[in-house]
Amino acid sequence: MMNCVETAALLKSWDHILILSHASPDGDTLGSACALMRGLVSLGKQVDFRCADEVPEKFAYLFQGIPLGGFSPEHVMTVDVAGIALLGSLREEYEAKIELAIDHHGTHKPFAERRWVEPESGATTEMIWLLFKELGIKPDSAMADCVYTGISTDTGCLRYRNATPRSYRIAAEAIEAGANAAEINRIMWESKTRAQLEAERFALNTLEFFCGGKGALIRVPRSILEKTGTKDSDLDGIAALPRQIAGVLLGITVKEKENGEIKASVRANPPADAAALCAKFGGGGHTGAAGCSFSETSIDEVADKMKAACEEELLVVSN
Amino acid sequence: MMNCVETAALLKSWDHILILSHASPDGDTLGSACALMRGLVSLGKQVDFRCADEVPEKFAYLFQGIPLGGFSPEHVMTVDVAGIALLGSLREEYEAKIELAIDHHGTHKPFAERRWVEPESGATTEMIWLLFKELGIKPDSAMADCVYTGISTDTGCLRYRNATPRSYRIAAEAIEAGANAAEINRIMWESKTRAQLEAERFALNTLEFFCGGKGALIRVPRSILEKTGTKDSDLDGIAALPRQIAGVLLGITVKEKENGEIKASVRANPPADAAALCAKFGGGGHTGAAGCSFSETSIDEVADKMKAACEEELLVVSN
Repeated sequence: MMNCVETAALLKSWDHILILSHASPDGDTLGSACALMRGLVSLGKQVDFRCADEVPEKFAYLFQGIPLGGFSPEHVMTVDVAGIALLGSLREEYEAKIELAIDHHGTHKPFAERRWVEPESGATTEMIWLLFKELGIKPDSAMADCVYTGISTDTGCLRYRNATPRSYRIAAEAIEAGANAAEINRIMWESKTRAQLEAERFALNTLEFFCGGKGALIRVPRSILEKTGTKDSDLDGIAALPRQIAGVLLGITVKEKENGEIKASVRANPPADAAALCAKFGGGGHTGAAGCSFSETSIDEVADKMKAACEEELLVVSN
Repeated sequence: MMNCVETAALLKSWDHILILSHASPDGDTLGSACALMRGLVSLGKQVDFRCADEVPEKFAYLFQGIPLGGFSPEHVMTVDVAGIALLGSLREEYEAKIELAIDHHGTHKPFAERRWVEPESGATTEMIWLLFKELGIKPDSAMADCVYTGISTDTGCLRYRNATPRSYRIAAEAIEAGANAAEINRIMWESKTRAQLEAERFALNTLEFFCGGKGALIRVPRSILEKTGTKDSDLDGIAALPRQIAGVLLGITVKEKENGEIKASVRANPPADAAALCAKFGGGGHTGAAGCSFSETSIDEVADKMKAACEEELLVVSN
């Protein structure tokens, strides 16, 4: 296990660096990768980026103007990747080559030669901000945008338990360095298309309660996406909804993905533990928010499995 | 116009202080009143509180343990009140007696003998936090809860344009002083009853677009509240929704209140201006969020008026 100073020293000695994000990329893994790439480029290094899944359009600004690739990588590292399985289809190609992992997941399962893991960080981009200081990089507004994006998306814009005073202060510093916080938050939290709104309404109609109202589940079959013309990622926001209902400790969303996989997203209120629940199915995440995937099954079977697992988890919690 | 130091000196010289919040009280006016009352009590002073409307149940914790009243007030002041009309039914009784107004609204219309108005503050509770420092008060966790509540509710938990680096830093300091940020945010942003969810679904069904999709309007007639068993304040969250739809510059919610008044809530994306729009009807607020009230009319008439005013505002903006 390394610390910030050692990680900075290691990065200083590297060049031609490939940074990997986790599959189904979110604002923190992409914000961390882009912030770090921008920082390394400012030090005169060459960088490249890969992710198993396509980068959602709303995150395109993170990458704007970063010169990528044109070399064969000498060093491979990951950001915000809690376990090797989360590299998705890139796992096989890179599994044996990863020299460094920077991550903030308490559930981090070591896979890289060296790692800097700080579970008390609200977002991995917070760690990148600390790295900047250690590397003597004065963040420009694009770096600040990347760091702010990770904090905002991973802490529910400072709403969740994982946001610490340090998260707030780094967000403040990022804004002072030029991060366009209000616009980033508008894109991440306050903007949906009419089609998305329609899809959410259909999804909401599938809401069911179980375990005497301590569990709530929403189903998003492909038919909803097809009839509204929306994409998988258009409905990411819905996962937060079931947990918001009074009395609910475990909120589940099961979604049929385009490739036939079924993705379950779990959100938990204390004392329920979303990560513990998803670990039963090989998934991972945080206490408050976690996920797991299933293949060769149906959305209704996954819903049944998740409900049964919730009942067990709620039994443990209430004992 | 006073500053923080002068306001602190004035408050030091007072005792038996009545603090007034604005009608339809929100987290900032109540958080400011309760934080300040707690601070003044810690200095050995006696305080009291009044508001034209009932305090919503979810804000009850702000008041817990504050010894109120039992005296006839020597001094009357307001917090977060942008104009005398916003005192609602208390206006007549106190209009001539208000010695001090502490407020952060850019649209503040002077009504008190003295005032400290800081439009660059994300919330009035930020100003109370500065007052604590000036008064030598070391905030306890209850004071920190009150201050954090105002910042969270008035900035959309740091999401909106009005959240400055100082807002983030004061929020960080409040958390360090013991504010239970995650729980406050859960109550304010992440918790709804099944009845609320149902009412929101009915309200969403009234969504209509106008001005070529630059305006969106939701109607909340009493019938929705009656058939779902919800109260006016249960549907406060819906006001944020119309503006979240892609392309919408002005999002309007018109709500029929229990007393027959019609309340219009306006949310704007730049360059549209919610405060300018509401000022046409004697209302007020901020550029991004404002409101106005109508009596002796119907919800549909108000909807028509608001749509016409939006068209004018959007015409101005696009020229």
